[in-house]
Amino acid sequence: MLGHISVKIGVMSANQPGRESRRVGLWMVGALGGVGSTAALGLAALARGLTDATGLTTALPIFARADLDDFASFIVGGHDIRRGSLWESAKELHERAGVFSSHLLASCRDSLEEWSRQIRPGTLLRTNETIRRLADLPEVQTGESATECVQRLRSDLRDFRERNHLAQVVVVNVASTEPPFVGPQADAPWPDWEAALNAGKAELPASSLYALAAIEEGMPYVNFTPSTGAGLPALQHYAWQKGVPICGKDGKTGETLMKSALAPMFAHRNLRVLSWVGHNIFGNRDGVVLNDPSNKASKVQSKDQLLGQILGYKPQTLVTIEYIESLDDWKTAWDHIHFRGFLDTKMVLQFIWQGCDSLLAAPLVIDLARLSLLAQRRGERGILKHLSAFFKSPMGVEEQDFFQQFIWLKEYAAGLGSP
Amino acid sequence: MLGHISVKIGVMSANQPGRESRRVGLWMVGALGGVGSTAALGLAALARGLTDATGLTTALPIFARADLDDFASFIVGGHDIRRGSLWESAKELHERAGVFSSHLLASCRDSLEEWSRQIRPGTLLRTNETIRRLADLPEVQTGESATECVQRLRSDLRDFRERNHLAQVVVVNVASTEPPFVGPQADAPWPDWEAALNAGKAELPASSLYALAAIEEGMPYVNFTPSTGAGLPALQHYAWQKGVPICGKDGKTGETLMKSALAPMFAHRNLRVLSWVGHNIFGNRDGVVLNDPSNKASKVQSKDQLLGQILGYKPQTLVTIEYIESLDDWKTAWDHIHFRGFLDTKMVLQFIWQGCDSLLAAPLVIDLARLSLLAQRRGERGILKHLSAFFKSPMGVEEQDFFQQFIWLKEYAAGLGSP
Amino acid sequence: MLGHISVKIGVMSANQPGRESRRVGLWMVGALGGVGSTAALGLAALARGLTDATGLTTALPIFARADLDDFASFIVGGHDIRRGSLWESAKELHERAGVFSSHLLASCRDSLEEWSRQIRPGTLLRTNETIRRLADLPEVQTGESATECVQRLRSDLRDFRERNHLAQVVVVNVASTEPPFVGPQADAPWPDWEAALNAGKAELPASSLYALAAIEEGMPYVNFTPSTGAGLPALQHYAWQKGVPICGKDGKTGETLMKSALAPMFAHRNLRVLSWVGHNIFGNRDGVVLNDPSNKASKVQSKDQLLGQILGYKPQTLVTIEYIESLDDWKTAWDHIHFRGFLDTKMVLQFIWQGCDSLLAAPLVIDLARLSLLAQRRGERGILKHLSAFFKSPMGVEEQDFFQQFIWLKEYAAGLGSP
Amino acid sequence: MLGHISVKIGVMSANQPGRESRRVGLWMVGALGGVGSTAALGLAALARGLTDATGLTTALPIFARADLDDFASFIVGGHDIRRGSLWESAKELHERAGVFSSHLLASCRDSLEEWSRQIRPGTLLRTNETIRRLADLPEVQTGESATECVQRLRSDLRDFRERNHLAQVVVVNVASTEPPFVGPQADAPWPDWEAALNAGKAELPASSLYALAAIEEGMPYVNFTPSTGAGLPALQHYAWQKGVPICGKDGKTGETLMKSALAPMFAHRNLRVLSWVGHNIFGNRDGVVLNDPSNKASKVQSKDQLLGQILGYKPQTLVTIEYIESLDDWKTAWDHIHFRGFLDTKMVLQFIWQGCDSLLAAPLVIDLARLSLLAQRRGERGILKHLSAFFKSPMGVEEQDFFQQFIWLKEYAAGLGSP
Repeated sequence: MLGHISVKIGVMSANQPGRESRRVGLWMVGALGGVGSTAALGLAALARGLTDATGLTTALPIFARADLDDFASFIVGGHDIRRGSLWESAKELHERAGVFSSHLLASCRDSLEEWSRQIRPGTLLRTNETIRRLADLPEVQTGESATECVQRLRSDLRDFRERNHLAQVVVVNVASTEPPFVGPQADAPWPDWEAALNAGKAELPASSLYALAAIEEGMPYVNFTPSTGAGLPALQHYAWQKGVPICGKDGKTGETLMKSALAPMFAHRNLRVLSWVGHNIFGNRDGVVLNDPSNKASKVQSKDQLLGQILGYKPQTLVTIEYIESLDDWKTAWDHIHFRGFLDTKMVLQFIWQGCDSLLAAPLVIDLARLSLLAQRRGERGILKHLSAFFKSPMGVEEQDFFQQFIWLKEYAAGLGSP
Repeated sequence: MLGHISVKIGVMSANQPGRESRRVGLWMVGALGGVGSTAALGLAALARGLTDATGLTTALPIFARADLDDFASFIVGGHDIRRGSLWESAKELHERAGVFSSHLLASCRDSLEEWSRQIRPGTLLRTNETIRRLADLPEVQTGESATECVQRLRSDLRDFRERNHLAQVVVVNVASTEPPFVGPQADAPWPDWEAALNAGKAELPASSLYALAAIEEGMPYVNFTPSTGAGLPALQHYAWQKGVPICGKDGKTGETLMKSALAPMFAHRNLRVLSWVGHNIFGNRDGVVLNDPSNKASKVQSKDQLLGQILGYKPQTLVTIEYIESLDDWKTAWDHIHFRGFLDTKMVLQFIWQGCDSLLAAPLVIDLARLSLLAQRRGERGILKHLSAFFKSPMGVEEQDFFQQFIWLKEYAAGLGSP
Repeated sequence: MLGHISVKIGVMSANQPGRESRRVGLWMVGALGGVGSTAALGLAALARGLTDATGLTTALPIFARADLDDFASFIVGGHDIRRGSLWESAKELHERAGVFSSHLLASCRDSLEEWSRQIRPGTLLRTNETIRRLADLPEVQTGESATECVQRLRSDLRDFRERNHLAQVVVVNVASTEPPFVGPQADAPWPDWEAALNAGKAELPASSLYALAAIEEGMPYVNFTPSTGAGLPALQHYAWQKGVPICGKDGKTGETLMKSALAPMFAHRNLRVLSWVGHNIFGNRDGVVLNDPSNKASKVQSKDQLLGQILGYKPQTLVTIEYIESLDDWKTAWDHIHFRGFLDTKMVLQFIWQGCDSLLAAPLVIDLARLSLLAQRRGERGILKHLSAFFKSPMGVEEQDFFQQFIWLKEYAAGLGSP
Repeated sequence: MLGHISVKIGVMSANQPGRESRRVGLWMVGALGGVGSTAALGLAALARGLTDATGLTTALPIFARADLDDFASFIVGGHDIRRGSLWESAKELHERAGVFSSHLLASCRDSLEEWSRQIRPGTLLRTNETIRRLADLPEVQTGESATECVQRLRSDLRDFRERNHLAQVVVVNVASTEPPFVGPQADAPWPDWEAALNAGKAELPASSLYALAAIEEGMPYVNFTPSTGAGLPALQHYAWQKGVPICGKDGKTGETLMKSALAPMFAHRNLRVLSWVGHNIFGNRDGVVLNDPSNKASKVQSKDQLLGQILGYKPQTLVTIEYIESLDDWKTAWDHIHFRGFLDTKMVLQFIWQGCDSLLAAPLVIDLARLSLLAQRRGERGILKHLSAFFKSPMGVEEQDFFQQFIWLKEYAAGLGSP
């Protein structure tokens, strides 16, 4: 059922390096943010055997025989619009949110500092004022056109691969959320976009410029945010044409994960959800960006749509995301679910989720990087639908039931031969 | 995978009455309790078209083509150890817990009064002091032996079937929870039990006497409680021999349903559950019985075991059930789940469930009655494993993941031909 | 400390009727709403001895010797902009929110029907579109000027008093919340307002027109809502001049009551509140009005200001009020309080309040009516500061600590002589 | 009202050292526990200006003019039955519960190490098995009699005072909770106890031996635990006779503080509390001791009694305290308060408290030490009733309303002249 897009179209290369010596790259857009720096720290810690693989789906027994890249095989790089280093970001998170030990941090400092030198200036093209206000890197204030920008980003990606002798590179978007991208051109086919780009008229959002650069370079692209990325039909089709695996969007980490686990329970018991209210509060940099209503709109939409799909009807819903500085990275969500049972009896389920956002997201980023690289080696192309369990708004599938999505992943894992 | 026990062994009868005219019986042990009286009220209301089928799994589209008995086909009867009527019990629940409308109650009074006349005295044999204290029916204070008791119960069941010209009768245990049944004889084979019964030495708990009576009469038996019922290996085997479908035990209605829905989520995300604390408070008659530590033990055990099975390891767990009078039938549960994510980060999920126990249980009783009657007509025998999604401690299966259990039910439903 | 305004300026009348025969009036603006109809039902039920005085502050032992009006002494009337009757409103609340018994409702029907005949058309002058949409009474769509309106309202009040031979009448605003009243004229002195009124140019909000009518008629005025009412300096001063007691504003019933009880605890323990988030959801008619951002602003402001006053610094705060239809009158609030303790340790207190709004408000309305009538008989005038414990935004006092406010009430009660 | 016991009986000494040079001692029984080590760390940090005084009641403006001892004036010592040091205990707490920064810890290490050398072996006399299991210090396994033990403890206290040239020493019990002390002799007068002691027959619990030693040495004694301590009538009277101030018992830090703040709110609004359920979970060493039912009984009793006193009637209550290892020092409490409002409407308030026990307790220990030393200098003796706001079971007073208790403290503070 999923196979019609992500089919295996051939092995990657005859002289593919063996698992032991294979080195791969994880390139993160927005690398210096909480998720990016935690993913980098996590890879460094896992490579050193300083932590176990808790939180990683790819460490489940179902993947025991899969040819996934070892943690130690990864080199990290990325784009960002802010100054700083992975080490500084991770340290800041440690101090403000009280997460991971200072020992762990110190032990991984070398890798973080080294990888930070691989980070290149990103782009502010077609972002908005709130995001621009975060940018303190002078190099990002350029007058370049969209085409010039894509060329520059591609060149960064190529350099990263070549300089580090990487067999493959996966590009993951973990940058701040953009406003929703709307307008008539959103559904235009790729040739129209290409023509517009060449004519200097394409209004592609920043996230899509990065996605385009990855596709052009033949690198798998993962959109971990609700931004547009490779979500435009034209880019999805172009990725397919170029044989590049893509997936997204918006990592399903906390409150929405809960929704996609609980809504099926109500559906299976034929309990009628009357209203589902979800209030989210948190205080990291992501929160600053989401506090801008235009950026928030993308997020709320991504968090709000799944209930109707799972339940088969649309209860009254309300989703808020508010910036509360004192919480730092600790996203707290209160959900109030009002439902009707037998003989018109109204009942209530409430839950309170207190999770550290970056720590929930980072392992999924590593999982998606490993699974996308594997998919590319297996010759899969276009949307990787078997990864829908990782996303709030999975591209190309309607299914939002977490457990159904997980069955797909399990079936995919079962289909992986021994290395 | 499930079929090796519940196989179809032949159609029931050549001249089976058509769906329209078929009348069936629902015999409830403990009929006058909250669950029993609500199930009776529900059937009466559904038969009259006064309420919709919210809360009924058998009303889901997956069962659209199944030959389930219409709500109007049911006649209700039962055993109880207390005076009273279904009407009085339902009215008391309405007044104390503020559930269902007085209009609904009044409209269904006729049926409830009529069905109450079908209720017969139960047995106190081998129950405990707390349960005996609830018994205000003089007839239950007999000196009869276990064998005499089973004969009496069987006679009640036969009379019910014959008097009402019923094609089938299903027996459902919704009585108060007994203490756990332990001891060397628990695993004895059926012939040993039979010999002991005949010798007047069998120490079968009350719930098993009812189960035995049902099996002897060839009536499907559902154990909706954590009591022993047909759970003894000897009775399971005897039911299989006699061609009788059985299922149980302990309806999965609220907090445990939540556990079996959320624990798989933690497992699939490889998040490590450190501790899971569940405090339950409620104030109905069931609560009085569970306030006795010996009765409570059965319940806590049933609520507590499933986490280890789903997670694959045993986190620290704590389950309490306490009687708080003011809550009446509104069972409130607070669950605190402490889990470890990536890089040793501890996070917390808490939920608060406020559900009306009888209203959650009653539709499941109706579902199980319909599905057991259908199973009997299809020639299934022994443990109905496809019904494990309905139970906290499903007999004959290890699986506790609600969504995996539901897949079995869905597959079963898909296998049902058109009527 | 409070006495400088509410001084006793003389007994009311030499031939004051005795307590037994004294009849008094409770005139409610917005009488047909949930609060109004519940207050009426409550008075009827208390007069008949059908319920106890739970929820009434004036039934506390501290008021045992106070010359408060008996519940049976009250006649109810009011203004409204909607069709309907107190009986219908109370019945609707009973059916939708599942509160009070049908027996209680039936027993009080006579009074509610009789009092409903005392209800007169209110005014839509200077309200907004959301409120106007609720108005289905043709009589309120008049072209009258503010002066004409006040004359009409005064005439209604006088008729009510005379027709029913009432010793006193208290006017209580329980109508929907208006948008905040701002602008340069808000602080103008009374003579300016009077001149503007006479010139047909006064832009008094509707709530203030009712307040003015009450003051002109010498009737105590209670503002139970966050609307302007008698809150303009000019009206406060005018009430004082005319010897009329006034109080308000915005009854402190649920989440804000909690805030004013918990914030002092944090202050006394020197625990630093970092952020206080309060999300409120409910679904009654009040909710429809508050769903309009302009009306909501008044409410949020009233709920949000007190923390700074109690704590002595301003933590980050967030207050939302959202309309969730399925909740009806059951206002549910989740408050998340993030605080810093010793050695920079961040800790969390959360509370969930599930209260029925009308049932929390109605007894306070009765309390305030009794205490305002008593104050008038005692010759008090202007703002009744000893009643600040009843209000979210008590007029004329800064103090927001509920327990300090209650001490004032207790001291006042202690100062009341025996009847 | 409070003055009849804690009267001022004369200034302490004519040649009292000035505030600057005065050095005082804080002697903690159970110094190496979480509370003890945090109090020591806090004093060290405050003395160095490394933290602000958040959490300290004595840092409120009401005490601005009081002659309280500076933080830098304190020398810390104590008794314990375990090996270890203040530094190790604080470090363990830091690592397990994630509290206070490693920088703070390192900066205060000198003081903690130095003070650790002042710690002497405590006593196991008349404690129970659970407590004895924690004792790993060989010196506490003695065969000494109660009299010999008191002599030894006194000698430790004297040595501490003399060696460090301390003007005063206050003894604070922060050791593990003992089982309740019951029996006919509990109310015996002091001479009887003294005779029994001399005869080697007194069965004083360990906590009372420490209290007796303090009283004999003329040192103020604070019981921060629910153990007996100076709570026996005989010891209270003896302290008065000897002119020693005492106070206790059981520091009011979290859930019970909430109860004593919220119960008055319900009382003042005349809302009827039907049931109050409080479930506490935590995982520190205190939790190990409280997991023993006999020790837990003291705690539950102390947490449970106050509601009846505040409300004037006894609602159904339930208090549990359970050991959940993963929580370490983070005590989490869920309280469910079911109350009845107007017209018999049942409503619910729930709160969840997530506080770090040691960090809540430690500042109160410092407050009580400062206030007890001040009281002694002011010549107060016997029970310090103005400190009841600090305790769950304040000795000598009935009042449990936190705000009324705080008024007494405020009045006391107002009565303190300038230094």
